[in-house]
Amino acid sequence: MPNTQLDDLDRAILRLLKSDARLTIAEISNKIGKPESTVHFRIKKLQERGIIDKYTIILGEPLKPKYLAFIILEVGRPIIEDFLDRYVEYITKTLSALPGVLFVAKSGADKIIALVGKNDKEELMNFIEDNIKSIPTLRNVVVLPVSEIRKGEDIAGFLAEV
Amino acid sequence: MPNTQLDDLDRAILRLLKSDARLTIAEISNKIGKPESTVHFRIKKLQERGIIDKYTIILGEPLKPKYLAFIILEVGRPIIEDFLDRYVEYITKTLSALPGVLFVAKSGADKIIALVGKNDKEELMNFIEDNIKSIPTLRNVVVLPVSEIRKGEDIAGFLAEV
Repeated sequence: MPNTQLDDLDRAILRLLKSDARLTIAEISNKIGKPESTVHFRIKKLQERGIIDKYTIILGEPLKPKYLAFIILEVGRPIIEDFLDRYVEYITKTLSALPGVLFVAKSGADKIIALVGKNDKEELMNFIEDNIKSIPTLRNVVVLPVSEIRKGEDIAGFLAEV
Repeated sequence: MPNTQLDDLDRAILRLLKSDARLTIAEISNKIGKPESTVHFRIKKLQERGIIDKYTIILGEPLKPKYLAFIILEVGRPIIEDFLDRYVEYITKTLSALPGVLFVAKSGADKIIALVGKNDKEELMNFIEDNIKSIPTLRNVVVLPVSEIRKGEDIAGFLAEV
């Protein structure tokens, strides 16, 4: 997605920091064969340009939910059509506050996509039974358990809450 | 998800590092009112226990795709049922290599969930037309454009590739 000007050096630095943000200037300089002053300047610029937004940690196995599922909720259109927004907003807000809910987004006018992390299938099913099925005004709920992550597998460790 | 023993101090440190992994021991010590030696020891332990898995960067606006959509692909069951796994594997692999595909996971025996990031709706539609609709053996494709992220909004900057 090169909608901003980055050269090969910028990209090399960004890739290294993505894989380990604790690398020192000296280590990066070594790995890419450029002077430390250059690396330092580039990182400073990447931060100033907002290309590096934040430095963060990814949580490991002990805190990572073992069982993930996407849940797609379709909100029924109310008799008073204007209320749809409020229903969607209410459910979105409620879901976001529930334990183990890692990600929540609205999709179109009447759908909500959530990523939920639990320890096993049973815990997920209980969560759905207790927290999702009880929501009134839902027209449809689709549960898509994640059986294998092929790309972006650190997503659970990134989104997991402490 | 407290399936491992963490006390309030561990959690406070983890939360601070999640918000800014570049905080120094001195800064963390200051914020939580504990000696630097304690903070140092705790971080060392959190790393050793695998609770902190990695340090990474989140990319900012200039590199973040502006238009996200979840795509759910349902693979048709082939006449020779045993081929289903291979079809799913093939599509999963193909998808993972396409530009702008941020996340790919298998769900159950015959579904694939992908998160795709593009600059606008048109780019997404072209992507689907060129790369998804052309896949044979697909039974159904559902596109769920993300209109508003409520929780986990850094997901695009985390998953974006350089």
